[in-house]
Amino acid sequence: MTDTWLTSLITKTPQEGFELAITLSRRGVKYTQPNPEILHKLRPEYAEDADSLIAGSEVVALNFQTVAAANNYWR
Amino acid sequence: MTDTWLTSLITKTPQEGFELAITLSRRGVKYTQPNPEILHKLRPEYAEDADSLIAGSEVVALNFQTVAAANNYWR
Amino acid sequence: MTDTWLTSLITKTPQEGFELAITLSRRGVKYTQPNPEILHKLRPEYAEDADSLIAGSEVVALNFQTVAAANNYWR
Amino acid sequence: MTDTWLTSLITKTPQEGFELAITLSRRGVKYTQPNPEILHKLRPEYAEDADSLIAGSEVVALNFQTVAAANNYWR
Amino acid sequence: MTDTWLTSLITKTPQEGFELAITLSRRGVKYTQPNPEILHKLRPEYAEDADSLIAGSEVVALNFQTVAAANNYWR
Amino acid sequence: MTDTWLTSLITKTPQEGFELAITLSRRGVKYTQPNPEILHKLRPEYAEDADSLIAGSEVVALNFQTVAAANNYWR
Repeated sequence: MTDTWLTSLITKTPQEGFELAITLSRRGVKYTQPNPEILHKLRPEYAEDADSLIAGSEVVALNFQTVAAANNYWR
Repeated sequence: MTDTWLTSLITKTPQEGFELAITLSRRGVKYTQPNPEILHKLRPEYAEDADSLIAGSEVVALNFQTVAAANNYWR
Repeated sequence: MTDTWLTSLITKTPQEGFELAITLSRRGVKYTQPNPEILHKLRPEYAEDADSLIAGSEVVALNFQTVAAANNYWR
Repeated sequence: MTDTWLTSLITKTPQEGFELAITLSRRGVKYTQPNPEILHKLRPEYAEDADSLIAGSEVVALNFQTVAAANNYWR
Repeated sequence: MTDTWLTSLITKTPQEGFELAITLSRRGVKYTQPNPEILHKLRPEYAEDADSLIAGSEVVALNFQTVAAANNYWR
Repeated sequence: MTDTWLTSLITKTPQEGFELAITLSRRGVKYTQPNPEILHKLRPEYAEDADSLIAGSEVVALNFQTVAAANNYWR
């Protein structure tokens, strides 16, 4: 990928940090499957499946650990 | 999402921290599937399935790691 | 849940810490499925399935990481 | 469980630490399924299944993270 | 493997760090399956499967935790 | 196991550290299934299956976190 999408892990609030964790999780998918049409086609497969949604939330939790540590937990 | 739902990771007690970890885990799902009707329909799929419940508890454990570190483990 | 079940992550010994990690893992399930009858019905599904038992042990390992860090590893 | 099986996370060598991580992983299973006959019966189910063996190694990796940190990585 | 592919975890930007995490995740596969033909043949199996893509993103998240810590979160 | 296979987590380079993480991941399997013939028989089951390869890479990522921390990230 040649576009710049991540220049800092620092966010103003925990919620923005959580949303950055969402972005990181999605980018982790896009590096493997960059084709937006295939990703769109797969959407019902995971967005309407409980186990896929839980697995997605696990990836977000891992990335939120990183972002939260980077921001010293917004203390 | 435009609503504000997360302004701090600091909680008064470990139990409130655990409950915040539950909230983070659910939000991790809602960012992918924001439709409450679909989420409601999926509920029996995971709330009555042992493996889904264990997977859900794993996401909570990861988010609790973050919240506990943020609170310096309520020492 | 309105009952108080978690007031501290500090334990006297590593074994008590491990047992607290078990409690945290079970609570992570109960917040999603609070009905004890359903949980009881699901028991054979996971307690006699190797993969579910391994997944359960993974959740315990994650929560034990948190409890052990909270106790400075009982050094 | 009433027996004492874990009094310290400190080990003399990294290898003993790894072996303690194995013990922790097995104990995480035994707290859920303490019946040794059932555990014995399940053995071929996971010990001859590649995915179960990989999942088991993941639990060991998580517990080894804890033990290694407790021992300051035996530096 | 005899080639040198990893001499440092330090990167100039978070995005380069994320891309290094992708590399680490792929290398973790190649050490087990070094045959490029088999890897190529497996590609549709995971690149067009939602659950495999989420699992891949989880590995990236774990490796990104390591790279981010190495770089002191590019603070 | 009576042989000595792990005397230190310190390595000269990040790549040697990654290779140690591979070793730790394999040892995590061998403690459960020490029979080399069974392990050999299982090889096609995981080495030609995308999901098993991704799961294997996840275990390596977890062990690499430990080795990297032990080496202070080779900074």
